Order: sequence, then structure tokens, then C-alpha cells
Amino acid sequence: MRLVAWLLLVIFGGGALNAGEPTKDEALSSWNEGPSKRAILDFVTRVTQEGGPDYVAPADRIATFDHDGTLWAEQSVYFQIMFAMDRVRALAPKHPDWKTKQPFKAVLDRDIKALAALGETGFLRIMAVTHTGITADDFTKIVADWINTARHPRFNRLYTELVYQPMLELPIYLRANSFKTFIVSGGAIEFMRVFTERVYGIPPEQVVGSSGVLRYQMQPNYKPVLIKEGKIEFVDDGPGKPVGINRFIGKRPVFAFGNSDGDQQMLEWTAAGSGARFMGLVHHTDAEREWAYDRKSYVGRLDKAWDEAVKRGWTVTNMKTEWKKIFASEQ
Amino acid sequence: MRLVAWLLLVIFGGGALNAGEPTKDEALSSWNEGPSKRAILDFVTRVTQEGGPDYVAPADRIATFDHDGTLWAEQSVYFQIMFAMDRVRALAPKHPDWKTKQPFKAVLDRDIKALAALGETGFLRIMAVTHTGITADDFTKIVADWINTARHPRFNRLYTELVYQPMLELPIYLRANSFKTFIVSGGAIEFMRVFTERVYGIPPEQVVGSSGVLRYQMQPNYKPVLIKEGKIEFVDDGPGKPVGINRFIGKRPVFAFGNSDGDQQMLEWTAAGSGARFMGLVHHTDAEREWAYDRKSYVGRLDKAWDEAVKRGWTVTNMKTEWKKIFASEQ
Repeated sequence: MRLVAWLLLVIFGGGALNAGEPTKDEALSSWNEGPSKRAILDFVTRVTQEGGPDYVAPADRIATFDHDGTLWAEQSVYFQIMFAMDRVRALAPKHPDWKTKQPFKAVLDRDIKALAALGETGFLRIMAVTHTGITADDFTKIVADWINTARHPRFNRLYTELVYQPMLELPIYLRANSFKTFIVSGGAIEFMRVFTERVYGIPPEQVVGSSGVLRYQMQPNYKPVLIKEGKIEFVDDGPGKPVGINRFIGKRPVFAFGNSDGDQQMLEWTAAGSGARFMGLVHHTDAEREWAYDRKSYVGRLDKAWDEAVKRGWTVTNMKTEWKKIFASEQ
Repeated sequence: MRLVAWLLLVIFGGGALNAGEPTKDEALSSWNEGPSKRAILDFVTRVTQEGGPDYVAPADRIATFDHDGTLWAEQSVYFQIMFAMDRVRALAPKHPDWKTKQPFKAVLDRDIKALAALGETGFLRIMAVTHTGITADDFTKIVADWINTARHPRFNRLYTELVYQPMLELPIYLRANSFKTFIVSGGAIEFMRVFTERVYGIPPEQVVGSSGVLRYQMQPNYKPVLIKEGKIEFVDDGPGKPVGINRFIGKRPVFAFGNSDGDQQMLEWTAAGSGARFMGLVHHTDAEREWAYDRKSYVGRLDKAWDEAVKRGWTVTNMKTEWKKIFASEQ
């Protein structure tokens, strides 16, 4: 009987034991002992203490993370825009007129100044030719090829090697404490889903993002496809984030982490729930190991949300002093 | 040590043992031995057999269920419309003009013929006054009050007592075999989410449905709200179902169950993936215990999807002969 019990324990109980909550010493090992790590550990301890005043049932332990600038880097432009520009270059041989036609000429000439001058109209034109008019399945394949081969110009590393090690550890720690972790990003949902499960352990159905209209079409060979149309359906940024959270998750987070003004409303929405809450912002302060930018940056501006964080006592993580290691790919 | 092992087994292993895969004799006990039960058991056996030719990894075991007419009844009108009509009656004292104004007069007079004659315009007007212009949180409370008290006129039972017992057992059986179960319904997402976790064990984030536009608004007391606007955002029906599945889940189901022409595209989309697939339709054939309707019904019409099912070899479940018990609330 004892042997049977042991076997059963190994088979059924062992997983639960091994995958259980890391001790506080093991968890978040790339975070220096500092205010952010203390705030995270303290919050998780409080909400998981059964019978305690701040206890939150596992089903309500919803944690949301912004993506660009929070889980991975976002300079000098969002990586999805790097993808779009690489895609323009890849498609250029089929479009000889692009050599002399804006905004494509600027991309092919790598003329960032001209590209910036073309503003939103130019940007939307690039997004249209690189993100629409194809099936959702084909888009997935194109992104998969790119993410597995393209390299960031400054670091000469795959973009997925520019995820932040401390921000890989944090969702793992939360999941070990029965949180369900979601990405809530202004990026395109179909772009992120290609790699979020492999990189962050966050499956496609736990990714909320911006989206375009899809059209269902039955092809003559009885193969249905979903066509990516040239129309924006939903922008999951700023006030769109609480909307996206409500639409996709249907529960209010108790824990949310962002890094820019585009995350302010997600943090407000999280903060406005009852009971214990955690609101965090990554502050990019390390020009040497990563980048240093905040109030004046065009990408990932942190200005109003920072003021709000200071006023409301949200956690602001100083990347330079609080993160022992920045990138998961560092030795 | 033996005691410790036993205690650990009870704590960690016991749950796994009890919640583990039911044996084939226990599973689906309200299903008669028949073609549907055989097809379900056979499919699950094949996709869960490691090393077998039809093996599907747990992360890809996505199962989607239509709601109205598949998991609970839908006659004589969708229960969400019963809610809307009850809501018009509840709001009527504040709107004395409704006594003489259509479509409200027809609802208050319980004049179904007049209501039907008002068609879609009347229907949308009723949906607008009962589903919009309030916060998402307030709507949730109103639905919760209704679902806990309103009773179906034919059976004098709570609507949640009109869920199908065989269709409670099926998602449980699938989850015990590491499937992730989703609802994919034309019904309003915020209506269903009020009770799907309690009734079906399907949490809000695994419910896909139709939705209206939400607007984020910060109130003067620093309390943000989400206002339900009077504009339809997404209709999760017919060709909208594969779109909703792609948007919310991001993976193609390997198992899908519906009951009407509104489910045809979801089943086609499921069928078109590679590897083993299960496509099922509930056929309402039992006028005595439930209702009997198909090709001519206004609600839940099963016509084109039925032809398709016969042609493609999908499973069509004859409710009268294959379900031992219909409602979960039956003795």
C-alpha cells in the first residue's frame, strides 16, 4: 500500500510539488533587492494568504502585461515596425515602382527622416501592404520566418533575445502563485501570438492586442480562409486597453505592468477595483545596457502615467538600479 | 512516512485522482450508447493516444461549443431576448409613453404577433434600451439578478436549469482529457459571462460572443467606467464564428459542437484543419421532453448545416434517441 501510495504521489502529486511556488529566495533572481521586488513579493504574499484580509481567489488572480517596452525592448522603433520595413524590402522586387514612390522609397533608402516626414499616412500605407490582403495563416508564416531570422541592428541579436530576463521571471512567479497571465498590447494580436507561447509561456488565447477586420471566405476547393482586410477593427492602446481587457478577459486585473502613457488607463482600471492591487511601470533608465528615455520619447513616452504613478503610489521600476540583468540573452 | 505520503497524496494527488479522466463507463452517462457517444469516445481516445497517428498535443486540444440550442434550450425565443423583454417590463414604469409606443407596447401587451411584424427595427430598438447606455458593471448586475430569478414560462424553471445534462458532461469529459473548452456564441458576450463559469465551468476569458462598442470614461471621483454604447462591434454568428475564434482564441479548434445554420462556418473551419477532427450538431427531435424543430424553425434553424453534416460525415445527435436525460434539472 505504501508503495502504491508513493507511486500515485509520484504520478499525480509530483508535478504539483515540483511546479509549486518558488521560495522567495529563488523567485525573481534577476531583480535586485529594491522597492519593486519588495512590492511584488509583498503583494503576492498578501493576496495568496488564505483567510487574510487581502486574499484573492485563484480564479480572480488576473495579471496583465503590456508588451513593447515592458516585456521586450521597443527602441529605436517598435519591433513590429521593423518587421513591416523588412517586409517592404522583401516585397520590393515585385514592386519596381516602390523605388521612386513614397513611403516605400524612404524605407528602401533607409531614410528615416523622410519616413518620419510622411507621418501617419505613410505609416498606414506601409502597414496596409505588409499586414493585409493575405490570409491570417499566411501572415502567421511570414511573421514566424521573420522572428526566427531577423536581427536587431544595435545588438545583432534575434528580437526574441531582447526580452527582459526580469520580466520572464515575473509571469513565471505569478503563475506559480496561481495567477493567470495575459499580454495586453497595442501591437497587432496576430503578430504577437506567433511567439508569445514559446517566449513567455503565454498562449495565444491569453494575448489581447490591436486587430484588423477579418473576412471568412470559402474557397472553391472547400478550404475556408480568413482574409486580413484593410480596415482597423480595434486599437488596444490607451483607453482601448480597459476595453480590450473587458472584451477578451471579462475580469478586472488585480496586477498590471506597463511602461508608457499608453498603459495609464489599464493601470487606472486595475487600481479602481476593490481589494489589494498592484500597478507597475518599467522606467527605461539604462542607456548603456538598454536605452534611457521617458517624457520626451516618441516611442514609449512615459510622462502622464509617470506623474499618475507618483501621485497614486504605483510602483515605478528603475531598470538601471533594480534589474541585475536586462536581456534574457545576456551571459 | 506512510502517513506523510498519504497526506501528500490527499493534498496533491487526491484532486488529480478525483478530477482525473473518467473511465469510459462513467463518462457521458446521460448519453445512450449510440453513434454520437461512440464518435466522441473514439475521437478523444485517438487524439490523446501518445505516439498514435492522430495524437494532438494538449495545448492544441481546443473545443468550441455554441451556446443557444447546444448547451441550453433556445425556444420559444433565445433566452437573451426573454431577458430583454423582461427588462422592458421592469423599466416600463419610468417610461409611461411605452404603453402606446412600439415596439414597447407589443412587449408590454405580450403581443408576439405585433412584435414579429415590427421585425429587426423593433428588435434593435428593444436591444438598445435594454443593453446600452449603462456601464458594463451595471449590466452585469442586472443580468445576474435576472438569471437568478426569472423563470421559463413552459417549464417554470430558472433558465440555468434548462441546460442540457449531456452537454454538461461533455465539456467535463473533454477537460479531463486536457482539452480547453470555449463557448462561441452569437449571444452577447457580457450576458453569457455572468453565469458560464458557475454553470459550465467555462470562465469569462473562454467565452466568445457578440459585442457592442465600449467607451472608457474617467468619472470625476477618479472611478473609471466602461459605458456600453449603442453601436454593434462584432456579430459572432455564421461567418463571424471563425473570425471570433481566430480573434479570441488564436488557434483552430479540433472539436466543435453546434446545432444550427449559424454554426456551419465554425464546423467548416474546424473540419478544414489537418489531423483528426470532430464536428457535431445537436438535432432537436424531442417535442415531448424539449422541442422538435429544424429546417423551418425561425429560432435555431438547422437546414444547410444539416445537409453539410450528412455530406461530410459530421456527427448529428438525435436528442430523442441519444440523450437519456435532457435537462440537468430533471430528476
